Amino acid sequence: MTEDLIIRDVRPMGGAATDLYIRDGRFAEAGNRKVAREIDGRGQVALPGLVEAHTHLDKTLVGMDWFENRVGPTRNDRILADRKAKRELGINARRQSARQILQTLAFGVTHIRSHVDVDTEIGIANIEGVIATREAFKGLVDVQIVAFPQSGMLGREGTLALMEDALKAGADIVGGIDPATIERDPVRHLDAIFALADRYGKPVDIHLHEPGELGAFCLELIVERTRALSLQGRVMASHAYCLGMLDTPRQHALIDSLASEGIAVMTVGSPSAPAVPLRMMRRSGLVVASGSDGIQGTWEPWGNGDMLERAKYLAQRNGMTNDADLEETARICTLGGAQGIGLTDHGLSPGCPGDVVLVAARTLAEAVALTPQRRTVIRGGRVVVRDGVLSGDLPDAA
Amino acid sequence: MTEDLIIRDVRPMGGAATDLYIRDGRFAEAGNRKVAREIDGRGQVALPGLVEAHTHLDKTLVGMDWFENRVGPTRNDRILADRKAKRELGINARRQSARQILQTLAFGVTHIRSHVDVDTEIGIANIEGVIATREAFKGLVDVQIVAFPQSGMLGREGTLALMEDALKAGADIVGGIDPATIERDPVRHLDAIFALADRYGKPVDIHLHEPGELGAFCLELIVERTRALSLQGRVMASHAYCLGMLDTPRQHALIDSLASEGIAVMTVGSPSAPAVPLRMMRRSGLVVASGSDGIQGTWEPWGNGDMLERAKYLAQRNGMTNDADLEETARICTLGGAQGIGLTDHGLSPGCPGDVVLVAARTLAEAVALTPQRRTVIRGGRVVVRDGVLSGDLPDAA
Repeated sequence: MTEDLIIRDVRPMGGAATDLYIRDGRFAEAGNRKVAREIDGRGQVALPGLVEAHTHLDKTLVGMDWFENRVGPTRNDRILADRKAKRELGINARRQSARQILQTLAFGVTHIRSHVDVDTEIGIANIEGVIATREAFKGLVDVQIVAFPQSGMLGREGTLALMEDALKAGADIVGGIDPATIERDPVRHLDAIFALADRYGKPVDIHLHEPGELGAFCLELIVERTRALSLQGRVMASHAYCLGMLDTPRQHALIDSLASEGIAVMTVGSPSAPAVPLRMMRRSGLVVASGSDGIQGTWEPWGNGDMLERAKYLAQRNGMTNDADLEETARICTLGGAQGIGLTDHGLSPGCPGDVVLVAARTLAEAVALTPQRRTVIRGGRVVVRDGVLSGDLPDAA
Repeated sequence: MTEDLIIRDVRPMGGAATDLYIRDGRFAEAGNRKVAREIDGRGQVALPGLVEAHTHLDKTLVGMDWFENRVGPTRNDRILADRKAKRELGINARRQSARQILQTLAFGVTHIRSHVDVDTEIGIANIEGVIATREAFKGLVDVQIVAFPQSGMLGREGTLALMEDALKAGADIVGGIDPATIERDPVRHLDAIFALADRYGKPVDIHLHEPGELGAFCLELIVERTRALSLQGRVMASHAYCLGMLDTPRQHALIDSLASEGIAVMTVGSPSAPAVPLRMMRRSGLVVASGSDGIQGTWEPWGNGDMLERAKYLAQRNGMTNDADLEETARICTLGGAQGIGLTDHGLSPGCPGDVVLVAARTLAEAVALTPQRRTVIRGGRVVVRDGVLSGDLPDAA
């Protein structure tokens, strides 16, 4: 249990200045108990912990040699290059995941859902590596692990058994991948992963890049299985580019059916992929989360994992420039992500875990537009980053 | 005349390590003359000065109060909000342009083409303001001023005469704006601005957001006038979104005709606008430049003016992740921009002006992907920024 903490003069979500109290690791009403520690917030914007709802902790090359990317343009080229790199570069999933976590903690990312590769070459070694990191960062950064059949499942015998091994070893979520374009059998793929989820009582998170009506059909299959297995609130469709490739009535119908089954959609706002209809999705009550996807890996050379910058990408991809829209994208990267990955008490209200990120900005919109650095990050009442500098007593990434 | 300078251990465009010599303000072959000053490049990547080929120096709000953006979604909403802001916020074009220049000089931007508003409310006050800044930064940052009829020209009587006044006052280039969707008469608008260019011997730079075949038709009109007036190499089409909205054979034909008249295309790689076919454009020999467009203004709340980050945006919007493609976008933001705005001796070869930007990256692709800060910038042999810190003797933005 940490000592009580008062954070003076901060502006929750850019609103009026106030003080925040953290008692026994959670936000509390102001009391008359003596407060042991005090922080001057200097009028900064206070956000709940940023939520990274979709990344690949096991595959970042942060801190390693520069990877010269000569990979071909198709998704399959990238999957092959990715598997080759894992083999040839000797990417250590435990160390690399810790590196990314430390880098993004400095931005205020306190909760991460990571897809972690499971395949017949590496088995569940990456799952075990990220589990080790998850344990090392317990209480500092919460990590959810998705057992992810990156190289395909149906076509590579033994993968489904490895997925099961991953769940037994401690993976939290059943992952899936393009049921049609990669797996070549949408019904069998989805039946297999939903069966695993049902058997192990786990949520589902599916990479769905399928285009247009093919993607829409896959989403319908996902809706049907979510309903049949009563998995409402426990299924996420990641990317779901198809939502940006349909005509408006079809978009509405699909989004409504996703919303009614409590299926969340994760979008990274990629500048080169179809833009999903963000406003329509939020207005329909759909839970929208966001993520960085892989950072600095063989897929994409860039990315820093800053989920406030991600809010900017979401706004930019959707042509949003209004303050109100930028505030909305900030909510997607905090509260939306939290709901999407199943957190029930994320926020700055009394009773919520004492997680807060302080950003030097005049408004929440400015925080998104200019993504100021040198943030202060508090986790469960413990100051883990002060003005951009990580506390000296955090786990390392050796 | 500055003293001779040697910059040791740098890697031009990410290539092999070498030393660069600057003598009498220009790159020179290594000689046996005594070199007065020496800089240790520490193996950094050396780039020619970054070229900002399209911005709006007179309208940035950098350093001013936060502008709460409640502007409607159309281009006309934005033009109205923009004109209202100029009136009500009292944006000082001289001061604001200096602020942006200082901010972007720290990134290595040594050459800027800025559109500057001319309209019947402010007259040519903004032109005069940016001219004052241009003079203040002479020899440090070169500024080209485009007389830009942001609010429209044909429909607002007196604007054309003001455009002429702007050229007489010292504007360098004749600007234009959507000849059809805003001006409502593409032939008359283009005839008017090309006539001005012809009469004053000035280049032309046209904002062209017109979509699809309408935009293509306007480009054809521009090609015809460029040919008729022998303005090859002196015309730029800015944005030219239509190039991203046509089928492939039509794209090829248009791009070839632009290339054959030496008409450059400027693209910012906006995540929410159509992506122009960058690879096809470069392969056709078309000159491609890039720019930040407005930064931190009433149009868009974000933007820092870093043309290396702009290279990343170009790559991201076009789904380019290969090292070779990232190198290409870096060339667009240096050499392409230089060619586009009419510089004839930009580069790191002997004889070129001694302008260089040092970036702490292992490869040119990494410089684009991760846009390292704390750069060193040398202009004409004078160190104006060292490890991110501006020299103390630069003009201020008071």
